[in-house]
Amino acid sequence: MAYQLYYWTGIQGRGEFVRLALEDAGADYVDVARVDGDDAMQPFLDGARGGARPFAPPFLVSGALVIAQVAAILHVLGPKLDLVPEGEAARLQALQLQLTIADLVTEIHDSHHPIASAEYYADQKDAAKRRAADLRTHRLPKFLGYFEQVVAQGDGRALGAHSYVDLSLFQIVRGLDYAYPEAMAALSPKLPQLRELEARVAERPNIAAYLASERRLAFNTNGIFRHYPELDGGIAAYD
Amino acid sequence: MAYQLYYWTGIQGRGEFVRLALEDAGADYVDVARVDGDDAMQPFLDGARGGARPFAPPFLVSGALVIAQVAAILHVLGPKLDLVPEGEAARLQALQLQLTIADLVTEIHDSHHPIASAEYYADQKDAAKRRAADLRTHRLPKFLGYFEQVVAQGDGRALGAHSYVDLSLFQIVRGLDYAYPEAMAALSPKLPQLRELEARVAERPNIAAYLASERRLAFNTNGIFRHYPELDGGIAAYD
Repeated sequence: MAYQLYYWTGIQGRGEFVRLALEDAGADYVDVARVDGDDAMQPFLDGARGGARPFAPPFLVSGALVIAQVAAILHVLGPKLDLVPEGEAARLQALQLQLTIADLVTEIHDSHHPIASAEYYADQKDAAKRRAADLRTHRLPKFLGYFEQVVAQGDGRALGAHSYVDLSLFQIVRGLDYAYPEAMAALSPKLPQLRELEARVAERPNIAAYLASERRLAFNTNGIFRHYPELDGGIAAYD
Repeated sequence: MAYQLYYWTGIQGRGEFVRLALEDAGADYVDVARVDGDDAMQPFLDGARGGARPFAPPFLVSGALVIAQVAAILHVLGPKLDLVPEGEAARLQALQLQLTIADLVTEIHDSHHPIASAEYYADQKDAAKRRAADLRTHRLPKFLGYFEQVVAQGDGRALGAHSYVDLSLFQIVRGLDYAYPEAMAALSPKLPQLRELEARVAERPNIAAYLASERRLAFNTNGIFRHYPELDGGIAAYD
């Protein structure tokens, strides 16, 4: 039976981390809201359906299972899609890394919405400029430097073998290239492992086909990764 | 062999969610930094020790296992400490709920540090006032309303039986009572299930003993939950 992925239409968003895993594995799945509209998610969010009630999209339905939170979804999908090395230790390490990716995703989102998700960017632009400067100067070097070392330890792969974590790191790098091109140009010389990982993932046949398809939406300024030139810039304090 | 918990001294912080699980289960553990100082964490953070390198504390060491990220630590400890109902479905639901708790914890932290974790509160006070107002008015009602319904569905327990998720929800409620007393006074009439859960957890013998011990640090304005009167207030827009 096909997996059913539920996520907002119109953006890649957090759903994309799940989508990349399903696409890479060639899994049979339906992107439900893109077929039936965003309203299709409401009964689940209202708790009117069985399973664990999601707080927010994305969530995945597979038979009787309803599971929300990207890291939990990938924790379930990993062994099923052969996207995590065998054994509990590797599966746990993947979970840990994915949770740190989730923290980074939140910080990237909040760099353009530091005050309130529900308010317009224009109404929090001054705060966003300060937060984005901190992201570029301190947080990105710290997070990306950490992942660079993790990938170096794994001989080019976060877990020493292909996994959903590599797919998510690919998405982080591509998203940051879109949102913060100037900062990423400055950081990239120190991130050879992540750049190599990005190139290798992009060449995987199923990923290459996906990226060339209409299913891969373009990055845009409604998503998590947003390109606002006034937020981008150098990383002066980064040594 | 005793579990070794590594977390910053001087605050409850994210380490407290792990501590509550270890204390409730009467597990044998050492709070390493409180014995040897914060420097004891550095070799792990530098990647100089085996296992999955932590991005940040807390992390737990158990034999050869080094595991970071609160939700991943509790995912490991749950079955070992009998703090999650049996079966993969329940374990997964616990993970999902704990990840939503983690999201809430980040939002609570960012309500006093919306611009940069590394900068002083005084230097981001104006932005904090706006973010805290959004937290009180929109985010807390949404998150706590969600958990209220989850607990109601489980007959007073997030998973229908005692689990580490209940211990974490207890910590959320206590932390918010300290940080945002006025907002919580306004919200509480709509949160009878969470209030009952909080009281029940506090009366568990091991938790009661822990809360009365010197191991339980007081909430303070260095932690995640901070009481700054200027950030607290009503929840006008909440119906």
